[in-house]
Amino acid sequence: MKTAILSVGTELLFGQITNTNSVYLSQQLNMLGIDVMYHYTVGDNPDRLRDMIDLAFNDCNLIITTGGLGPTQDDLTKEIACEMLHDELVLHEPSMQRIEAYFKKLNRVMTDNNKKQAYFPKRAEIFMNNAGTAPGFALEEDGKMIICLPGPPREMQKMFEQSVKPYLESKSDSVIYYRILRAFGIGESLLETELLDLIDHQTDPTLATYAKEGECSLRIASKRKTKEEAEKAVNDMIKIVQERIGKYIYSYDDENLDTVVTRKLIEKDISISCAESCTGGLFAETLTRSPGVSKVFDRGFVTYSNKAKVEELSVNNETIEKYGAVSEETAIEMAEGLRKVTGSRLCISVTGILGPDGGTEEKPVGLFYVCAIFDDKQICKKFQGRNINRNSNRNYSLLCMLHIINQLISDLK
Amino acid sequence: MKTAILSVGTELLFGQITNTNSVYLSQQLNMLGIDVMYHYTVGDNPDRLRDMIDLAFNDCNLIITTGGLGPTQDDLTKEIACEMLHDELVLHEPSMQRIEAYFKKLNRVMTDNNKKQAYFPKRAEIFMNNAGTAPGFALEEDGKMIICLPGPPREMQKMFEQSVKPYLESKSDSVIYYRILRAFGIGESLLETELLDLIDHQTDPTLATYAKEGECSLRIASKRKTKEEAEKAVNDMIKIVQERIGKYIYSYDDENLDTVVTRKLIEKDISISCAESCTGGLFAETLTRSPGVSKVFDRGFVTYSNKAKVEELSVNNETIEKYGAVSEETAIEMAEGLRKVTGSRLCISVTGILGPDGGTEEKPVGLFYVCAIFDDKQICKKFQGRNINRNSNRNYSLLCMLHIINQLISDLK
Repeated sequence: MKTAILSVGTELLFGQITNTNSVYLSQQLNMLGIDVMYHYTVGDNPDRLRDMIDLAFNDCNLIITTGGLGPTQDDLTKEIACEMLHDELVLHEPSMQRIEAYFKKLNRVMTDNNKKQAYFPKRAEIFMNNAGTAPGFALEEDGKMIICLPGPPREMQKMFEQSVKPYLESKSDSVIYYRILRAFGIGESLLETELLDLIDHQTDPTLATYAKEGECSLRIASKRKTKEEAEKAVNDMIKIVQERIGKYIYSYDDENLDTVVTRKLIEKDISISCAESCTGGLFAETLTRSPGVSKVFDRGFVTYSNKAKVEELSVNNETIEKYGAVSEETAIEMAEGLRKVTGSRLCISVTGILGPDGGTEEKPVGLFYVCAIFDDKQICKKFQGRNINRNSNRNYSLLCMLHIINQLISDLK
Repeated sequence: MKTAILSVGTELLFGQITNTNSVYLSQQLNMLGIDVMYHYTVGDNPDRLRDMIDLAFNDCNLIITTGGLGPTQDDLTKEIACEMLHDELVLHEPSMQRIEAYFKKLNRVMTDNNKKQAYFPKRAEIFMNNAGTAPGFALEEDGKMIICLPGPPREMQKMFEQSVKPYLESKSDSVIYYRILRAFGIGESLLETELLDLIDHQTDPTLATYAKEGECSLRIASKRKTKEEAEKAVNDMIKIVQERIGKYIYSYDDENLDTVVTRKLIEKDISISCAESCTGGLFAETLTRSPGVSKVFDRGFVTYSNKAKVEELSVNNETIEKYGAVSEETAIEMAEGLRKVTGSRLCISVTGILGPDGGTEEKPVGLFYVCAIFDDKQICKKFQGRNINRNSNRNYSLLCMLHIINQLISDLK
């Protein structure tokens, strides 16, 4: 299927919000094997909406719209879609009941214009909205299809996941199954080199690599007659990939490294504390995004000044004077001091120069040291970020810290 | 001018990157008084690019493209734009010299296809690229104009700011001047109420309010014959607004609250330390995003566990038992302990329940306390976030901490 994504909303043209719906839908549709040819955005204007639908059907057979399904006069996507595919709007009783129940639950008065949201094209397949009031729908005519979804990203994504994806899959005579592997410590080019023969010669499953900041993703996808066949093809390929680059892979389900590490820390009940200099609290902040982490996270020190390193972590003044605050020696003393103060089973420290200023020839911007103590193991590693950008260097430092922890605790039962 | 923004790049249709260029350009163009009618995205495909330009010129007289200006075979935007407005490509000597110099500086070999980037439509106005290799340009024919800009956001934004904005202003017989005020602690509806007569009855300058998470923005814009006239009209209006809601305004130049607070701390040379519980390091992390802050930021404690609060900040076990870790009493003892340990002139603490779990009837999710000690002043405030979302509550806590600091230090000479 060739597809155009049509976003409706004047606020997009004002630049008041970023169009994340197009990104989400493009990713999802590509993963279903559906080609996305165009993104269009128009304001809440019926004539332009008609023109765009006309245009898109020139060389697409599917149009997915987001936005313009609400209760106000401005919301016209449904009406125009219905008109363009020659259908008429009729009351959809189950939708009316849901909308009434929704308002009752919130103890709010349902106004007349809310009823508009329960009218749908007669031939439409209706998609319930489990996160808001406006349902979506799919409407077909002569091999052309329009799918209309609500604008708020949370509602749209839930509806896509629960209703649209299965609907599109049911329209196809094949099934796509895919998994996304995430790796750290291996560049995209090295990843490609290691897997070149598989990437080049495989027609199914297909392998595709993507580079993210400091990380790599690998998508393995198969299109077969049944889900079981596709799933088996993907999982067989994963075994081959695992043998070659398994040590770099930290997730087989497209999770973030911090999500993986936090989950493992909680599951294995490993108490953790951190001492941060250059990252300024980013490590602690990232770990504590997960609600359950209070079970294992004891405390963090942001020892930004040298005085703080000495007073809180018993780093020796002499060490800082002789080797500098950014040195292997200081990183080690920070972690050792942290262990003494907290007694946490896993103690991790970081110190570095993240720029843009402060670099020297000997210690350039992007240099940092990470030291981790876990039970009786101690490791200290030197890293050199390739960025001049402070924020990128901070994020890279964070990933390196998480990666070291992941390696330390993964083998633990 | 009626405008279409045309983004070129297959990676957008794959959902690999979010289209932030359209957002940036929409904001900038709207602020210049130029109407944005459409956003289009197409892949690197010459026929579709031609079709989209044709279509856009149906009811627009300006098309701004981003992407497709690079050195590879895929990059065809310039060629198509030139063809559509009936011009021919010729060598632009200054661009060739710049590109050669760029490669020399990076010590990289300039390949033949890089020379492609120095060819431009004969009639074009060329915009230098001060952040990369591909220059941009504007080309006109019979009242229709295409402006082609590079795809990487950093290059595109720099070029827009330095070259395109002045170019578009020079084409207009009027000048738009605007300023964006940012406020905290006043809801959008209250802001509108306080300024309703101005918003409703002013034709120039115009006032528009925008709500951001926990914050409000107010844009004041004037369109006059000269910049001086417009500037005066805006600044006169700002004085009126200031009299009404001045105490809520923290920036008259669209800055973030953290940027404002960090700058003031550095300018006034106020040493600062923090003790965070619920925000988990977010406050320290935010402050240390600015490179110069090491001058004033001493250290931060992320005392996540009760044990850490007692050991690092000398909070009394009895206080936690009697009033709870989330209480005014604990927040005060955290700040007092922090002051004793660090001696920083400004000490700030926060403790709260950010959810999604852990709330009770007495202490619901979203409740938090902030205590600040500055010189001999001490204040402790209770806040109730209205979100159930953990991340939103964290961000709101951060803003409240920054707001308290801003109020404490603003009057200081």
